[in-house]
Amino acid sequence: MEIKSNYKEEAPEAIMWSQKAWALLSTVRSQSPLIQCITNFVSMDLMANTLLSAGASPAMLHTLEELPEFTPQVHALCVNVGTLSAGWLPAMKLAAELAHKSGKPWVLDPVAAGASGFRLKACLELVELKPTVIRGNGSEIIALAKASVEPTKGVDSSHESTDAIESAKSLAQASGAIVAVSGAVDIVTDGKRIVGAHNGVAMMTKITATGCSVTALIAAFVSVDQSHVLEATASALSVFGIAGEMGMKMANGPASLRMHLIDSLYGIDEACVLSHAKITSLS
Amino acid sequence: MEIKSNYKEEAPEAIMWSQKAWALLSTVRSQSPLIQCITNFVSMDLMANTLLSAGASPAMLHTLEELPEFTPQVHALCVNVGTLSAGWLPAMKLAAELAHKSGKPWVLDPVAAGASGFRLKACLELVELKPTVIRGNGSEIIALAKASVEPTKGVDSSHESTDAIESAKSLAQASGAIVAVSGAVDIVTDGKRIVGAHNGVAMMTKITATGCSVTALIAAFVSVDQSHVLEATASALSVFGIAGEMGMKMANGPASLRMHLIDSLYGIDEACVLSHAKITSLS
Amino acid sequence: MEIKSNYKEEAPEAIMWSQKAWALLSTVRSQSPLIQCITNFVSMDLMANTLLSAGASPAMLHTLEELPEFTPQVHALCVNVGTLSAGWLPAMKLAAELAHKSGKPWVLDPVAAGASGFRLKACLELVELKPTVIRGNGSEIIALAKASVEPTKGVDSSHESTDAIESAKSLAQASGAIVAVSGAVDIVTDGKRIVGAHNGVAMMTKITATGCSVTALIAAFVSVDQSHVLEATASALSVFGIAGEMGMKMANGPASLRMHLIDSLYGIDEACVLSHAKITSLS
Repeated sequence: MEIKSNYKEEAPEAIMWSQKAWALLSTVRSQSPLIQCITNFVSMDLMANTLLSAGASPAMLHTLEELPEFTPQVHALCVNVGTLSAGWLPAMKLAAELAHKSGKPWVLDPVAAGASGFRLKACLELVELKPTVIRGNGSEIIALAKASVEPTKGVDSSHESTDAIESAKSLAQASGAIVAVSGAVDIVTDGKRIVGAHNGVAMMTKITATGCSVTALIAAFVSVDQSHVLEATASALSVFGIAGEMGMKMANGPASLRMHLIDSLYGIDEACVLSHAKITSLS
Repeated sequence: MEIKSNYKEEAPEAIMWSQKAWALLSTVRSQSPLIQCITNFVSMDLMANTLLSAGASPAMLHTLEELPEFTPQVHALCVNVGTLSAGWLPAMKLAAELAHKSGKPWVLDPVAAGASGFRLKACLELVELKPTVIRGNGSEIIALAKASVEPTKGVDSSHESTDAIESAKSLAQASGAIVAVSGAVDIVTDGKRIVGAHNGVAMMTKITATGCSVTALIAAFVSVDQSHVLEATASALSVFGIAGEMGMKMANGPASLRMHLIDSLYGIDEACVLSHAKITSLS
Repeated sequence: MEIKSNYKEEAPEAIMWSQKAWALLSTVRSQSPLIQCITNFVSMDLMANTLLSAGASPAMLHTLEELPEFTPQVHALCVNVGTLSAGWLPAMKLAAELAHKSGKPWVLDPVAAGASGFRLKACLELVELKPTVIRGNGSEIIALAKASVEPTKGVDSSHESTDAIESAKSLAQASGAIVAVSGAVDIVTDGKRIVGAHNGVAMMTKITATGCSVTALIAAFVSVDQSHVLEATASALSVFGIAGEMGMKMANGPASLRMHLIDSLYGIDEACVLSHAKITSLS
């Protein structure tokens, strides 16, 4: 991939990015931010364990009645529409509104946004509620940017992240959110700047809920540095990818990779982040 | 067990079965069929990971509003009533109808069918909607065939699969579905033929959702060869069992077996399937 | 910690406790009690696998329509309010009532009891339904005992278990339940006696749903010895903690600890329980 070849490890910019990623992970570990997750049933276990292993404190709490008291207290909110239903949507919206009003960052994961009109409409309504970050795969970001339902591979992307750069930029400009597109290279944009995070291994796509979980990790990273959302987003993507790279060295398949990834995220140290983080400006 | 002793590895029929099992797994890997799962909360994670590790693409999507657009696009549907509630039943039924109308195979897992009148009625209504395959344990298949609520061990079977052969045959004849009964020997029947899949290890019953997950794997196998449903069902049961046997060599208990099983399903190759598959005609 | 230093391994009382813990685990393995769990979405997988690995039979069944037929048949009920919603609460209450009327023990896990007025009210209503055991962390037990909503760290405790001893005693006296408080030392009280279980490792707090899962294990232990609820509760906490200690020897982080913990719970033998159990009277 051309983009990858542009990456130069010794560039001062790369060093700055690596240091930023490590500083944010350290802060998550020391502050243990409380991250509320309203997410799909499939991802709850891995998402909570991802947050715990990174040092954050997860709260998988979605009940409408509790949100007015609870959401303003959290440090960030993660909303994921994976197993969306009409019953859950009002809580997603109310939590997003409460987070926004309280000045707390919230992150949207528009799983399979283009899979149906119902889902697309729900995602677009959530985008209206001012997410701080939107993270999806290429197909999801394209569906959101074009506001169109498309033939789908379900939750798996039929587009490379790099195919979605223009969509990501226009979605960022229209929504005011930082937009991240996961793929072989993770793309992050504020509508002008484009940053690439080049960490991770292909087998992570064979583990359910890795995408959902990195979105929650983004929420944790953004919660500890709200003034640098783009940087925090790229850092979370990179750190999660590094944990995958470290895990891959010990893995024999997707299930052992899942275990080693979480162990690695828990144990990852400064030297490892500084030597492995591959974040670079793409424009 | 007598049935097991009838198995002869070198028989030409056994070789044919092994080759069939491998051919189907290869096709799942190359075609990556989209499998919609409306399943219980407990099994979602392992089921999605089972499908991913076998090369299929899972979509855990259950919302009524989305089904008319989504279900006709999938390659197969898996419906599992494990954590059944009145709220979820309409989606299960609609998805089944849509799959049937679209000519897509759908597979029913009647978890704990005999545990209550509500559950039994729901399962019988689903059977009316023409499942392509029904897979359960001995107690579940007996409850469905007799349409009777029985004292129960919850989701665990109090019957051997071989005790349920007559029930399986009559259920297959009455419903038109291929019926599979999991147990020490997995039984598959179309109402006339009876095939046994002799793979797997006992410790798999100590991992929650292995039964649910193999039902989803059956859906994936059937989706790539709809004209040989009985063969595809037996093949999926055998391949999952082989993965369990391979995993067992590395396992120290149920949790490590779960991990190694999924890794093995991901990595299993032709030589392994051909040498380990134990499928045989029992009548 | 002072309490810990009071522990003397060779005391006859300690030997009696260890023998009790082993006897109860053995009985769970031989009787395989059916444990109904109405629990949060995050914990279902680990809870079911915890029960299976201990030899019990889990049934994750929560539907209102099924409870009158099903709950009276189970050997114990576990109710956990982690992902509480208005829709699930009636089933929690009905199941609790049915268990109580049928003379079956039921165990309450008041997750994040103080996180909102809605949640606190629901927990207090459940306490009115005569739970046999209530197990929470320090913050949860304090919130219940004081019947007050408090600033919260979500599901994680901001109190040591030992800070909650007086709250635990008064809750036990007011409710008639045995009250257990998880922490570095697990505290169990009937309102007069106080017993400490000193097993477990700190990293278990970095795995989601370990607290939920040990509550289900308490239900299993209590189900096989209803006349010694305090002892059964302390034994379950100790055995789960020992499994964590054994798992920790092989773990590289939270995810491998989770796996090894379950494997260890499955494989733990008499010598291990007798040599590792650390239960002692604290008053």
